[in-house]
Amino acid sequence: MPEERIAPVAVTRIAPGSVTQTEDVLAVEEPLEIRVACEGREKNISVTMRTPGDDYDLAAGFLFTEALIRSAEEIESIRHWGSPNVVRVELRVPIDASKLDRHFYTTSSCGVCGKSSIDAVRVISGAPSPSAASISKDVIHRLPDLLQQHQSAFRATGGLHGAAIFTSTGDLLRTREDIGRHNAVDKVIGSLFRDGATPLSDTVLMVSSRASFELVQKAIVAGIPALASVGAPSTLAVQLARDFGLTLLGFVRDSRFNIYAGEVL
Amino acid sequence: MPEERIAPVAVTRIAPGSVTQTEDVLAVEEPLEIRVACEGREKNISVTMRTPGDDYDLAAGFLFTEALIRSAEEIESIRHWGSPNVVRVELRVPIDASKLDRHFYTTSSCGVCGKSSIDAVRVISGAPSPSAASISKDVIHRLPDLLQQHQSAFRATGGLHGAAIFTSTGDLLRTREDIGRHNAVDKVIGSLFRDGATPLSDTVLMVSSRASFELVQKAIVAGIPALASVGAPSTLAVQLARDFGLTLLGFVRDSRFNIYAGEVL
Repeated sequence: MPEERIAPVAVTRIAPGSVTQTEDVLAVEEPLEIRVACEGREKNISVTMRTPGDDYDLAAGFLFTEALIRSAEEIESIRHWGSPNVVRVELRVPIDASKLDRHFYTTSSCGVCGKSSIDAVRVISGAPSPSAASISKDVIHRLPDLLQQHQSAFRATGGLHGAAIFTSTGDLLRTREDIGRHNAVDKVIGSLFRDGATPLSDTVLMVSSRASFELVQKAIVAGIPALASVGAPSTLAVQLARDFGLTLLGFVRDSRFNIYAGEVL
Repeated sequence: MPEERIAPVAVTRIAPGSVTQTEDVLAVEEPLEIRVACEGREKNISVTMRTPGDDYDLAAGFLFTEALIRSAEEIESIRHWGSPNVVRVELRVPIDASKLDRHFYTTSSCGVCGKSSIDAVRVISGAPSPSAASISKDVIHRLPDLLQQHQSAFRATGGLHGAAIFTSTGDLLRTREDIGRHNAVDKVIGSLFRDGATPLSDTVLMVSSRASFELVQKAIVAGIPALASVGAPSTLAVQLARDFGLTLLGFVRDSRFNIYAGEVL
């Protein structure tokens, strides 16, 4: 794995009957500033705490899942810009300024503006429902192990979230890790988005974390029909999934899972 | 526990050899808009996805740990404002506009502006180092169980983060839960801040989650000398803790823990 994602630190380990000076390996956390440039205008639209690596996937995925861009064709270039912690995305098509305002307006990456979050996401996606998921129980039972096998940095540090996109028959398409749940999802979606593979119909997104409103929103915008999480979903995640026809599975582990929205085969 | 924090949803439970229609209890997730009013001006400064309850603690804690206000005396009133998902804080002292801009500028509640996160937090706190922690190993070993005993909504849902502040001798001062890590910490700090109990010298903050840069930053601004987390810290969390003299403990569970910064007795 790239060195930049993990780093050693000196640590004192306290255990029953022992105190040991040793070295531990931690997940790297650094800010990433995403700048957007178009027609001579340039704007910082986001600063996120992320684990370095796959920064271009993260930037593209963020712009896509926040519904600021719809196709990889809209991107002229993505480059680091004067710092490893700044990425500049040059666009061929201007971004809707009101959507940009939404980003300046919110500080917690929540993707909503106060009144009614469900209404807000409808505006964001302006989108048809994703295609119905067609995934079997057997495939779902296999996903947690497959995700974990690819979480190399998590195994080293215990400190990263994993996100993976599989075909509905359980073949791994892409996987990414990050210290932030949203970032891991933006990276894995952004990677396929940059390949022109969106909308991601006939896939399932598996995350090592809980399933929040925002992760459901990102899946819907990307056209992913099913989201499976190792942890619990929230009430708003379930509501949004039901409204948009997304299949939402929680507590997917140990050959068990709960269906909160949609169906499995 | 207040009903609003958890809610029942219909669920299909898949287990080896069984499919059951039943009811599950989930953590409630709703957006909270925090508005600040002062001298006739009014501004929305944050929207965060949170679990309802303790909203005034959250609003006050957010303003305090983001270094926008320094004392509870600066607050004239805190009220819900036309919606259970909007809180309006009326201040007696205007907020530094440049700090407000910082909030409009960032979208991911990261608390930094791109260049150097360590420098940025120095500006934010403009603060002396917290007093050195004086906590014994025995006290630290007791904290995870004490936190868990008070995580009533987590026990019901598996979906909430817990944060608790203890005295350095292990007495519980306050505990709060939220679907967001940052919110749980803002709520527990905000609650004591509103009581006039800050700076929180001679205390330890225990969190059920991982320890990120931002949680360390919030602890430092609140004058808390030690942060203990059930999960892993990040590189930047360790760096910030060492720079500011905060004692940082990770993987605090099962009678073990790691010391990443500072010392214990």
